[in-house]
Amino acid sequence: MPVKASTPLLKKDLLNGRIPENQLKVQNMPASQYDTDLNKNPANHQPLTPLGFLERTAKVFPDHTAIIHGKSKTSYRDYYARAVKLASALSKNGIEKNDTVSVMLANTPPMLEAHYGVPMSGAVLHCMNTRLDAAIIAFQLDHAETKLLIIDREFSALIKQALDKAEVTPVVITWDDPEFPQTGEMLGKLEYEQFIAQGDEDYQWQMPSDEWDAISLNYTSGTTGNPKGVVYHHRGAYLLAQGNALTASMAKHSVYLWTLPMFHCNGWCFPWTLSVIAGTHVCLRQVRQKAMWDSLAENRVTHLCGAPIVMSTLLSADEKDKRDLTHEVEFFTAAAPPPEAVLAAMGEAGFNVTHLYGLTETYGPAVVNDWNRDWDLLNPVEQAAKKSRQGVRYVCLEDLSVRDSETMQSTPMDGETIGEIMFRGNVVMKGYLKNPTASADAFKGGWFHSGDLGVAHEDGYIQIKDRSKDIIISGGENISSIEIEDVLYKHEGIDTAAVVAIEDEKWGETPCAFVETNARGGDLNEQAVIEWCREHLARFKVPKKVLFEEIPKTSTGKIQKYVLRQRVKSL
Amino acid sequence: MPVKASTPLLKKDLLNGRIPENQLKVQNMPASQYDTDLNKNPANHQPLTPLGFLERTAKVFPDHTAIIHGKSKTSYRDYYARAVKLASALSKNGIEKNDTVSVMLANTPPMLEAHYGVPMSGAVLHCMNTRLDAAIIAFQLDHAETKLLIIDREFSALIKQALDKAEVTPVVITWDDPEFPQTGEMLGKLEYEQFIAQGDEDYQWQMPSDEWDAISLNYTSGTTGNPKGVVYHHRGAYLLAQGNALTASMAKHSVYLWTLPMFHCNGWCFPWTLSVIAGTHVCLRQVRQKAMWDSLAENRVTHLCGAPIVMSTLLSADEKDKRDLTHEVEFFTAAAPPPEAVLAAMGEAGFNVTHLYGLTETYGPAVVNDWNRDWDLLNPVEQAAKKSRQGVRYVCLEDLSVRDSETMQSTPMDGETIGEIMFRGNVVMKGYLKNPTASADAFKGGWFHSGDLGVAHEDGYIQIKDRSKDIIISGGENISSIEIEDVLYKHEGIDTAAVVAIEDEKWGETPCAFVETNARGGDLNEQAVIEWCREHLARFKVPKKVLFEEIPKTSTGKIQKYVLRQRVKSL
Repeated sequence: MPVKASTPLLKKDLLNGRIPENQLKVQNMPASQYDTDLNKNPANHQPLTPLGFLERTAKVFPDHTAIIHGKSKTSYRDYYARAVKLASALSKNGIEKNDTVSVMLANTPPMLEAHYGVPMSGAVLHCMNTRLDAAIIAFQLDHAETKLLIIDREFSALIKQALDKAEVTPVVITWDDPEFPQTGEMLGKLEYEQFIAQGDEDYQWQMPSDEWDAISLNYTSGTTGNPKGVVYHHRGAYLLAQGNALTASMAKHSVYLWTLPMFHCNGWCFPWTLSVIAGTHVCLRQVRQKAMWDSLAENRVTHLCGAPIVMSTLLSADEKDKRDLTHEVEFFTAAAPPPEAVLAAMGEAGFNVTHLYGLTETYGPAVVNDWNRDWDLLNPVEQAAKKSRQGVRYVCLEDLSVRDSETMQSTPMDGETIGEIMFRGNVVMKGYLKNPTASADAFKGGWFHSGDLGVAHEDGYIQIKDRSKDIIISGGENISSIEIEDVLYKHEGIDTAAVVAIEDEKWGETPCAFVETNARGGDLNEQAVIEWCREHLARFKVPKKVLFEEIPKTSTGKIQKYVLRQRVKSL
Repeated sequence: MPVKASTPLLKKDLLNGRIPENQLKVQNMPASQYDTDLNKNPANHQPLTPLGFLERTAKVFPDHTAIIHGKSKTSYRDYYARAVKLASALSKNGIEKNDTVSVMLANTPPMLEAHYGVPMSGAVLHCMNTRLDAAIIAFQLDHAETKLLIIDREFSALIKQALDKAEVTPVVITWDDPEFPQTGEMLGKLEYEQFIAQGDEDYQWQMPSDEWDAISLNYTSGTTGNPKGVVYHHRGAYLLAQGNALTASMAKHSVYLWTLPMFHCNGWCFPWTLSVIAGTHVCLRQVRQKAMWDSLAENRVTHLCGAPIVMSTLLSADEKDKRDLTHEVEFFTAAAPPPEAVLAAMGEAGFNVTHLYGLTETYGPAVVNDWNRDWDLLNPVEQAAKKSRQGVRYVCLEDLSVRDSETMQSTPMDGETIGEIMFRGNVVMKGYLKNPTASADAFKGGWFHSGDLGVAHEDGYIQIKDRSKDIIISGGENISSIEIEDVLYKHEGIDTAAVVAIEDEKWGETPCAFVETNARGGDLNEQAVIEWCREHLARFKVPKKVLFEEIPKTSTGKIQKYVLRQRVKSL
């Protein structure tokens, strides 16, 4: 195990004995020959930033197709030119270093342009989830102190409501998609194309003065209370962008289909990754079955990312809409472990599925279920079990570990002892915007606390067992709500399940299950569900109560357990 | 064009007007919300270092073959364990942070172990060219202040001579290759395996306390005077290691054949690259034709690097020793542009050749002839012309440009105007060891001055025309000695050619050619060579003198023009 020094060395680390003695000695020694007259200067030290990736690719492969959107194709020359003009137009309109530029855009070319043009002006890019309600949008705009807002015409009614509620009064620019015209009101004085036209193609865009400078702001989806503003820096964006290419073995000129929303952790940094390998973005305004299959076949897509729902959507397409793929497609999924049946069906359809894991705070994925060739020999059930694990650190994440949240000791690698999953490294956020208390909590003890509970297996692969808030403590025993939900999901009559704690006089807490049934679960009742659980679970884990209700979800499809917790309180 | 700020901002940059005004304003403004309470801490900032690559791969793919050497195979588990034990043994033997550990090793497993074990002890790795003479070895050991020296038994006689001349008295450890036993004397008290055995497998190896810490030392080959000690840092090694994988589209588990000596710029950082992608190193103690072909076929090699001579060696193998390759092999070459005939033959034999360029000061390759698909449509002559250009910056090099050495202005991108090739970015050395004057010269004006003269073509690709010292100025006209050499090389009777300036009363300087002929050039004489040049060159570029002599080369095969210049002085 390496000794990892904090940077810079802190006195309290010293006091806590966290600095090894040999390193300490160095601190007190005269400078070595390797530290003398060998300083940083502009020739040998430049800030890491993903902005240079696009500049380079535009120079080297100017005619290569950077973006496909509907019937339109944009070359790297034009992509870069438009990003620079956007930066210039922002600057001409008073946007300065560290101002916030917010956008509410679908997976379309302006969204890709914003990932370069906004930081090229020195501003910070804030992408908003298009499924949010007006109140949360207003909260974000105010909290971020948004100076300028770029939106797609589709969302103008929603934005109008939000601006009515917000205190800030940003300049508004609306884009009207020429490929897929929308009908909403055109907000603001300038249409996006007119705005871009104000920009200067040879604008001297701004490198960050330091790689620690902010590049973007992403709000957590707020399954628990107010959203927090996660700040990314140029260094992390550069490293994760390259990390994706390395993790996904993305060769030069790979073709990437946008099913993952770019408002999620900056599309897991793939808007920057594609410029590293001079790849082609294929935009999808809406994730529709026929459009996906057509694009996969016609554009010879090599890679895509998405939640498990995207796999189901692909697989459940009409047979007439499906297409034969001439090459294996790499599919990266996160959020929930890919089920065995889905993995098998995806394999048959020509996809290789890899499971990733991360949080908004880690720029999207920072953990990968890195596949061992030996596992190809396992049977499908065993393979699915391996794939269900979250995995190991990305190369660009320096450390990943499961620890006791209080003592900060690593848990044994036994696949059983639950601890908190913790991250350390250069693809962990700068912190939460204007929330030093939350930042300090998140970074307690020199590790980022994910709030996810999990185990480390003997081979070092980690697996999530629960969110820390979702653990149920019954008679002193920890019960994983995920374990119960897994059992419920295995019932053919149950479509969605969520388990939370309900207060219990005797046990402290007991599990309470919420279920949504399907056609085959028409006559399911509470007793039948409890029986099913008894067959598959230790008795103390069996829910004492089962409720047949619609389960509330966030705009990104995450189950809102805090709402369920409120409901059970009133029972 | 981006505005690139120096880091940190220097007052003299300000005075020279190098800091754009908008950035200046930021300096005087109160801290932005994005710079408040968002500090570095161990959870979100760790030093970049390639050492973690091996640790990760050993954990994730412990049983994957890391190294093939003769009949032996080493797993990643054992590779990492041995590197850690090496670090521990070094530490137990008094090696401390920033001490120099020198090695003289062939492309064998201990050389790979040294690339991790030495820096894991906090020391700096100094790899010596095995073809050096004793005097230069002694110079390097003294200059580097070597504390410990690891050698291969093959080189013990040479090392003994060098140690006799040197002032330092390092601990010496000798490795005796069990796969290819050598006969030299075993120097020092401990054999390498005994030394490793002293190490502790769970030694707490040292992360650098800062990514700017030195990781290795590489001496320039000294075509002009005393060798200079080029210092690499962890940050640069991390970035170029990943840069290689991205540039070479190296997928997970690629197989790399070691024909490039690892004592060259740390094997262009490939010892670190392979750990990024969990690849397999195939060692080659000696670059022999049959061994190469056998390895390519049997180990399913995917990538290799080497000077043009390696291509000739492969191609000139006996037909019975050549093997059919079942897959295309990526070959990366540097030092001289690959000639058309060689490219064609390599293509037929199953290789795709890519031309790289860099210097010891840039960690090896930092420029790539990044191929445009459109160029596949060109005829072989045109393709070879495209391939002969050095190319464009690696993704991890922030800037590359051809500039006037005095005014520092970029030359026009016309493919004609000669300037000095200059580099700027994170894969440029820390500087020259104990040579602040040379460092200051090299970094003058905020760019690394390569000393190579070249042009920028219209598409931004650069092409070397000459070393600055090799340009011939005749009657006020600049003559590229490379251009004349190219013409000489095209003569079927000429094997090697070198052109230097000779003083001339009338013209100042004129070209003087040295040639080595082959069987087909048996009756070549001075007049015939001059005639040949007249057919292909402008009259003022034609050599006035042609000498038929053996051309002196360095141990790495570089032509020693300074020796030729001495010779012509005495004519």
